[in-house]
Amino acid sequence: MKIVTDEKRLLGPGPCNVSERVRAALARPMLGHLDPDFLEVMETCKDRLRGVFRTRNAATFPVSGTGSAGMEFLLVNFVEPGDRVVVGVNGVFGSRMANLAEKIGAEVHRITAAWGEALPLDGLKAAIDEHKPKFFGLVNGETSTGVYQSVDGLAEAVHAHGGLFALDCVTSLAGMPVEIDARGIDLAFSGTQKCLACPPGLAPVTVSERAREALARRLRPVPSFYLDLNEILAYINGSGGRSYHHTAPISMVVALTEALAEVLEEGLEARWERHAEAARYLTAQFGKRGFTPLVAEGDRLHPLTTLRLPEGFDETAVRKRLLVEHGIEVGAGLGPLAGKIWRIGLMGHNARPEVVDELLAAFDSGTP
Amino acid sequence: MKIVTDEKRLLGPGPCNVSERVRAALARPMLGHLDPDFLEVMETCKDRLRGVFRTRNAATFPVSGTGSAGMEFLLVNFVEPGDRVVVGVNGVFGSRMANLAEKIGAEVHRITAAWGEALPLDGLKAAIDEHKPKFFGLVNGETSTGVYQSVDGLAEAVHAHGGLFALDCVTSLAGMPVEIDARGIDLAFSGTQKCLACPPGLAPVTVSERAREALARRLRPVPSFYLDLNEILAYINGSGGRSYHHTAPISMVVALTEALAEVLEEGLEARWERHAEAARYLTAQFGKRGFTPLVAEGDRLHPLTTLRLPEGFDETAVRKRLLVEHGIEVGAGLGPLAGKIWRIGLMGHNARPEVVDELLAAFDSGTP
Repeated sequence: MKIVTDEKRLLGPGPCNVSERVRAALARPMLGHLDPDFLEVMETCKDRLRGVFRTRNAATFPVSGTGSAGMEFLLVNFVEPGDRVVVGVNGVFGSRMANLAEKIGAEVHRITAAWGEALPLDGLKAAIDEHKPKFFGLVNGETSTGVYQSVDGLAEAVHAHGGLFALDCVTSLAGMPVEIDARGIDLAFSGTQKCLACPPGLAPVTVSERAREALARRLRPVPSFYLDLNEILAYINGSGGRSYHHTAPISMVVALTEALAEVLEEGLEARWERHAEAARYLTAQFGKRGFTPLVAEGDRLHPLTTLRLPEGFDETAVRKRLLVEHGIEVGAGLGPLAGKIWRIGLMGHNARPEVVDELLAAFDSGTP
Repeated sequence: MKIVTDEKRLLGPGPCNVSERVRAALARPMLGHLDPDFLEVMETCKDRLRGVFRTRNAATFPVSGTGSAGMEFLLVNFVEPGDRVVVGVNGVFGSRMANLAEKIGAEVHRITAAWGEALPLDGLKAAIDEHKPKFFGLVNGETSTGVYQSVDGLAEAVHAHGGLFALDCVTSLAGMPVEIDARGIDLAFSGTQKCLACPPGLAPVTVSERAREALARRLRPVPSFYLDLNEILAYINGSGGRSYHHTAPISMVVALTEALAEVLEEGLEARWERHAEAARYLTAQFGKRGFTPLVAEGDRLHPLTTLRLPEGFDETAVRKRLLVEHGIEVGAGLGPLAGKIWRIGLMGHNARPEVVDELLAAFDSGTP
């Protein structure tokens, strides 16, 4: 039996295809948001998220918005006007995090690298020691460039100055190692539509005890009600009476809980390896067709491969042909990489050699 | 064929039950958020929302969060620090709107009434003339009390001072008249899980041209990226190239589009009348059992009926029995009304006499 039976094969930067099993969960009969049966689903969802994030953080749950709401959740709760913030910027999402911190009124220091390059660890450490940020933000998997950012040794540097380490795991979670506790990450967010292979609509987040202590020391109220962690926790982690905060997106939480079961049944290590293998095969096969990797070998984000296009390649026409004639979506470049690269996502169930073969057959059928 | 085949009958303050048709839409195969097929769904969704809101506003779309995110969307875009704001407060949601405006730094004037009473129109007009608010916020259907608030003549008063009129239509939209253009409402938000009979997860909003002109005159940037109207419109209403803002919650938008079709096929007037009739029948039947309406006759919110409990009635035990033995959920009172009222929602497909009979049969089966 096929896991996915969609008419379209989604090999862009996300959403990816979703299994029949998760789609069936999405369509389950409605439950009240305070119904004991739903609260049990929510508890299971939180437990499974802890498993996927590899954390014991009590405050681990899905924010009721897409991945971008997860980023905003971290910033509105943990950054105040005047706070010193350091953000690594080498693509759209690092840039967005820095801009949002500025909107909030923080003093933002951007550590930059070219789009397609990882940020050097020694440069990041030096910036942390220089600026002693209260909030240090990094993108683990930069969806705009296909770079996987190493975080080795950074938590120690951030914590030495009493700061918090925040990681954007949107495209890395469940596709590559994200070890929240082992790596000393204080704050992380992700999206559901990448390697968790669930529809978009929720932002899994995790918040360490250290971060919650910092939150208790805030000087001003959180400038949001919808994303206010303490307000959310009164519902999400409420023992005894759960107080109303907002109506949880029931169907999406049920679907995510099922998607997380798929991930944990496969096992994280096996899933990481499957994503790595599929990306290697894709890169090799497209290499034979004149595409060269944008990102250096050790820095590649396996769930999303970025490839420089061959000379004179009409990327718009070929992308359109793949979508219209074959129902296959691949992603275009963004910003300075528009027209220069393709972003091919092999995420969740799509991280398989037979999916790459499907793409290659469609690609080759139009090449003279 | 039954429209709804759920194991539980959801007669609380929402979510309500969802039809098989909408659940099937929710489970449709995934599409990319820039796929032409999905963009067509989004256009249809926006058109149908205009139909349900009765507006021509170009900026009419679902915000990617639950109803509470819709409230926050209006406030972060249209209220700045120091702005004069008037809010009608006679329940949880008016109170929340006033508090959120204060969090943003506005000068907030609350016009209050007791929980369960409507706000008198002359008092509201006098407050508008006195404070000349830039933003006047009112709750059309107060889900905590079951009051339907009239808005007659208020838009003229607000506009006379150059202000914007914002209306919380979470529980009224598609269940009672919400005539955005005819009533001169500038800003409105709703939720999907009430009379639209869709799962929770999206907040339909509409923004008038007058409000967009006011937005263009803002002095400071909007203190949110996720909810920034201009950023969202570049994707939602982008002509030619749609720029990436966030990944739309595809499945929820598909489901909402289908739920809106159900609403428009029935016709708004017929749907309003169906909600009114069901509420009248419910109130009469529970009247025979010692329950009395909390709200005066002309001010009742038909989709959500609030009833004072009979003397000595063990409301917790009976609510639990209904849920556990009969799979029927009814809502408890909130705040000062906890333990004093029930909130019974007859929303969407549940606004039918046979559903009331189902509830009565279950209720009576346990009464000696």
